[in-house]
This record gives sequence, structure tokens and C-alpha cells, in this order.
Amino acid sequence: MARIVQKFGGTSVGDLDRIRHVATLVKAEYDRGNEVTVVPSAMAGITNGLVENVNAISRLHDTREYDAIVSTGEQVTAGLLALALQNIGVPARSWAAWQLPIRTDDMHGKARIKEIETAKLIERFGEGQVAVVAGFQGLSPQNRITTLGRGGSDTSAVALAAALNADRCDIYTDVDGVYTTDPRIVPKARKLTRITYEEMLEMASQGAKVLQTRAVELAMNQGVRLQVRSTFEDAPGTLVVDEDEIVEQQVVSGIAYSRDEAKITIVGVEDRPGIAVGIFGPLSDAGINVDMIVQNISAESGRTDMTFTVGKSDFDRASALLDEIGETINYRSIDLDDNVVKISVIGVGMRSHAGVAKQMFGALAEKGINIQVISTSEIKISILIAEEYTELALRALHTAYGLDQD
Amino acid sequence: MARIVQKFGGTSVGDLDRIRHVATLVKAEYDRGNEVTVVPSAMAGITNGLVENVNAISRLHDTREYDAIVSTGEQVTAGLLALALQNIGVPARSWAAWQLPIRTDDMHGKARIKEIETAKLIERFGEGQVAVVAGFQGLSPQNRITTLGRGGSDTSAVALAAALNADRCDIYTDVDGVYTTDPRIVPKARKLTRITYEEMLEMASQGAKVLQTRAVELAMNQGVRLQVRSTFEDAPGTLVVDEDEIVEQQVVSGIAYSRDEAKITIVGVEDRPGIAVGIFGPLSDAGINVDMIVQNISAESGRTDMTFTVGKSDFDRASALLDEIGETINYRSIDLDDNVVKISVIGVGMRSHAGVAKQMFGALAEKGINIQVISTSEIKISILIAEEYTELALRALHTAYGLDQD
Repeated sequence: MARIVQKFGGTSVGDLDRIRHVATLVKAEYDRGNEVTVVPSAMAGITNGLVENVNAISRLHDTREYDAIVSTGEQVTAGLLALALQNIGVPARSWAAWQLPIRTDDMHGKARIKEIETAKLIERFGEGQVAVVAGFQGLSPQNRITTLGRGGSDTSAVALAAALNADRCDIYTDVDGVYTTDPRIVPKARKLTRITYEEMLEMASQGAKVLQTRAVELAMNQGVRLQVRSTFEDAPGTLVVDEDEIVEQQVVSGIAYSRDEAKITIVGVEDRPGIAVGIFGPLSDAGINVDMIVQNISAESGRTDMTFTVGKSDFDRASALLDEIGETINYRSIDLDDNVVKISVIGVGMRSHAGVAKQMFGALAEKGINIQVISTSEIKISILIAEEYTELALRALHTAYGLDQD
Repeated sequence: MARIVQKFGGTSVGDLDRIRHVATLVKAEYDRGNEVTVVPSAMAGITNGLVENVNAISRLHDTREYDAIVSTGEQVTAGLLALALQNIGVPARSWAAWQLPIRTDDMHGKARIKEIETAKLIERFGEGQVAVVAGFQGLSPQNRITTLGRGGSDTSAVALAAALNADRCDIYTDVDGVYTTDPRIVPKARKLTRITYEEMLEMASQGAKVLQTRAVELAMNQGVRLQVRSTFEDAPGTLVVDEDEIVEQQVVSGIAYSRDEAKITIVGVEDRPGIAVGIFGPLSDAGINVDMIVQNISAESGRTDMTFTVGKSDFDRASALLDEIGETINYRSIDLDDNVVKISVIGVGMRSHAGVAKQMFGALAEKGINIQVISTSEIKISILIAEEYTELALRALHTAYGLDQD
């Protein structure tokens, strides 16, 4: 007997037939004698519809009301899935977050889970009951419904797995695992059998949409064994595990890309202490995340260029803010460019291998692709290039690092 | 300053524009310095859609899951309405039933309200906040969401008005008040300025759909002043009040009709003690409500005919049940007829006036309409006639009782 958490994404529960199919996947675990907790997302499209209504009523809305409204999608799916399970002979009940409760902070719209009370669930496991827990939501200290941010059901599932000390947390989705890169762009991409938490974290935060970053982080910190697998095909997926569980290490495990960033260059800014904080302080205060930052060497005496990237959704706000602080900062001009893509090669093997960057720059130079910005971490190298080179660069790098399928 | 409860039906909050309009009606009360509680229904069509999904997944569903699912419609409208109010400068927040809580019994799908904790609402009134309380729902002793049955938001509103000791409970709907009869059938129907609780109760339970029976009953028992008025026209509606508040009493105040009943006649049943309980006991055990009952005088020695009506939705189950008990009861045959309409004339003035029935029978005889079943109460006379005479009968009776508009 094992204790399992199964999470199903929005397309996996996209209509009543799919909910019935999901019920059979839950029943399979149940019939093996396992203690099962299921975390469904809202049916695909439902949350977006609710968000649209909220925005139409009030652009600058009270996020507490936003949360009360958009959390209903998961409440509905949890109920329908519990019914579908009962219908095929599996005792099940739905739980809203407030009924356990799943306690969060009060950062509405992007709350963080603080604590989950599991006593009621464990009591019901003893009676042979499957728990269907609405994902994406929690309860604030003020007794109001919170939500965990888009894709938050992954986090709900991992947090439940940690609190329940579950043997495994299976993330069912519309792809059958984690790939070396996006197979829609690189047909030779391979499915990974295993990937480390650190790599998965970088893959997720660098644009691979298969898992939410926070969920991976939580799994890593809590030691939750994650599996990414397909709702629609019965095949083993990708296990996300500790580094020591991976026998044969690739130098590079995967290549991620993100079209969600835009590049801003502040041209001819004074090259003096305090300039960086003068620029990035206000951006941070406005809640705008800055990703890659490069400061060029002064071309002219006392002046420099500062380049950085922000999320495309923050692009307009960021450039408006830079106009505002123009008086304090005293720069010559601002270049804005949202025709860029960020490509990241990722692998824990980089720690012990030199030459990974050189290989990258060589492969891109060979295709005539100009690199605009570079940033690196211990297990990752990211570059910014013109968006039109996305496919060419991904395929070239995939081949260069020996990731192509036979 | 007064304390007001405003309830808005599904068509009143049917889309975002209408929700915005409803917000202006709430603001008008708020701007008068009143303490306002608003109870919205789900947007028209939403609850039906959820119910359809539940039935499609599982015909014999767990009503606890049904309630968790269908209660989300009101949660969404409450949030959207709170946002629409904030947007026009009215401090407001939404409350789910479990947040107050509104305590009910555990009869899921048709729960009864036991107690409402109002301390939090009253505290917020003191801070100038409007309460938007999701209608139709409650919290069971087992900490699960219950619903109050279709149209239950009327009951939520009246129960809140009673618990808050409100000065008035306004039921906003798509008609502008209570009419002497259905104006779509009788163009000369008049809007009533006032009607007594007893009359409203009979009107509602005899087929007038403007208010839910249970809500009127609760208002009567708790002395809540009800007003039925239009969301879309700014005109006074109909006040539902105590009998002593009505100065000039009509003998007949209104005429209701219902096409929801069907007639069953058990022909040639033994005329002996215990027969009635042998028929109506099993029907009652099966949860089938019997309305009108008539037992004819024995035409032949030792045998009689028993006629009664049941709701059309129970018609098939009732006739199947009568087949089953045929052996015990020993009747000759069963006549089934669902082409009938029940027409009821209602008025507290009947108590002190004779001749109301005679007037009714005379008016119908004049039009050649045959009366199949008659039943009376202190303030009501109901008859069953062939459905095809509905319009003719309503108009004839409306004229006969002097209800026609000038």
C-alpha cells in the first residue's frame, strides 16, 4: 500500500467524458489498495472566463473578491469528479480548501501555503475513501478564500503530498513527460526518464510549461517524488528526483525557451555608483520582475548602457516607469525590443564540465545567430536572441549537445 | 436610517450590465444612509447548467456533492456584485454562507435554515460596508455546503432580514409586483399595492411564481415586511403585510393557476375504513405530495371512486406505485389525466363573506366549464378543470370578482 497524490490539469478534466476517464485513472490506484488524494484543476477555459468577467466589471479589482470568484471552477470539478468516482464504485468526497483547511497567507491572487491540516483526510483513508481536494485555493488568516496564482493546482498537489507524507505525487497533463526540449519545434526531442529537481526548476522557470516553478521548488524542499505523466496515454512519464538517483548524468539535460520576455536598454546612463539601484529599485517597488541584466563597458567616458529583460506583460508599465524616473537617472535614450526569445541550456552536469558555454556560442555562431544578452547560473546558461531565430537555435543546440533521438 | 435587505433574482443579475445596474439600486439605498444587505441569485442559466452537468455525471447523485457544485453560481455573482459596488464607490464585500455562517440542517438539496450569525455583518455595517451574501446556500452541521432548494435565495433574504431585524426585505424581480392574476393571460389584471401574508402564501403555493412559498411563510412567522418590486422599472411594488395593515379589504384579492398538477382517479375501490391510508400512506412514504383529494359517494354498494392530484413531475412514479399496491387495495381501474389546470381564488375577506364559492361556480357554469374537483380552505377555493379552459376561466372569474382594471 502506498499513499499517492494525483493532480489533473485543466485539459485533463476539460469535459464530462474526460472527468469520467480521470475517474478510471483514480480507480486504478485505488484498486491497488493505495490511499489516494486527487487534486483537479478547473475545467479548461472556466477560470479564464471567470477572470474575464472580473476584469470586465472592475479592472483594478479587490483581489479578495477575485479569489472568491475564480476559485469556484475547482470547486465544481472536485464535486463532479467525486460523483464520477462514486458512480464507478469508488467512495469519494470533495473538499474545498476551507474545509480542511489549507491555510495560506493573505497575499490574495498569489497566496503561499502555510499549513495543511490532514487529520480529516487520513481518517477517511482509514474508511477507504478517496479525497478529491479542489486545487488552486486556500484559506487566509482572515477566513477568506485565497488563490495560489495561475497553475497553482500543481502547488496544491505537491503541498498535499508533503503534508500527507505521500509516496508519490503524479502530475497528469496533456503531454506524456518532460522532454529535452519542445518536441513541437524539435522533432528529435527525447522524453526524459528522470530529471533532477534543480534541472526541472530551471526548465520550469525558463519557459517549459509542464510544471509550475513553485511546485517544483516545494517538491525539492520537501523531498516529494514527482512524476509528470499523460492523462491520455498509459505510459511511464518523467520522474523528478534527487541528483543521486540519476545514474548516468548528461552534461546538458534540456533546453528551454521563453517568448515571454522583452528587452529594455537604457542608453548613455551615467556610470557611477547608485545608478543600478536607481533603476531597479523603482521597478522592484512596482512589482516588476527583472530577469537578465547586463551592463556594457563604457564606450564613452563616464557613460554606459544598461540592458535588462522584463516579462512582456510588464513591458508597458516598465517603460512608463522609466520615463518617470528619467529626471533622476539622467540617461540619453531608451531602446525597447519585444522581438526577442530567451533560450536556456540546463544540466546539473555543467558543475563538473567546462566548455558548455563555448559549445553553445560555437553552435549559434555557425548558424549566424547574434547573441544579445548572456546570463549564467551554476547549472544553466541563458541567452537572448532575436525571436525569428528561435527554431533554428533550438535545433542547432539540441544537436550540438548530443540530445537528438536516434 | 433603516436596515434593508435587497434580494435580486437570476434575470436581474443575468449579465454584467445587469449586475452593474443592480449595483446602482444598492447604492441608492446606501446613499440614503441605510444599512444594506444584498442577496443575489446565480446569473440566469448558470444553476441549470451546473445541475445538467451533475445529472449527466450521475443520475442518482450524492446530494452533498450536488450542493457543493450548484452553490458556486451564487458565490460568483456575490463576488461580481461586490466588485461592481466598489467600482461606484460603495464599500462592499461578498460573504459565502459558510463565512457567516448561515447554519442549516443536513437535508442537502432542500436544507432548512436553523440560525444565522449576524455579528460580523453588523460590525461591518458600523464601518459603512454593504454585505453581499450569496443566496440559496448554507452550512450543514457536518461543515458541508447545503442548498435550500430552487428559488432558495428568497428564503436566504427573508431569513437574513429576520436575523438582522431588518426594517424591510425587498425582493427585486423581473415583474413589478404581485398582480390579481397573470397579466399575460388577463390583460385587465391589476397590480396589488398590498397583500396579506396569508394571501401571498396561497398565491405562491397555488402557482404564482413571484415568491417562493417557504420565503413567504418565514416572513409571516418572523414578521418580516416584504416588498416585491421590479429591478428594471423604478416604481413601487407590492407590499406583503399583516392583515391589519390593509384598510379596504377585497373579498377576493387574487386568482392563481397551476398547470403543474395531474389528476388520478382510482375507480371502484372498496368503501371501507383504512382504504385512504392504504393509498396515501405509500404515496407519502415515496415522497409524493398529494394535493386535492375527493372521495365520491358510492354509486354501487360497497365501492367508491377516489380522485386526487399530484405534481406532474411525480405522475409516473405515482401511477407505477398504484400498480404495485393494486393487490392490497383491490380497485377496479385507474384513470390518469394530466390535461388539467388548478385555479384558485384567494382572499382573506372570504372569512367574513358568504357566497364566494357560489359566485365562482356560477361564473364557470355560464361559460360551460365543468368543474372536476373542488377543495377549499379558510381563504381559498380551488377547482380543477380541463386545461383548455384556463384562459376562459381566469378571465371570467377575474371579471366576476370585480378585479378588472378600469
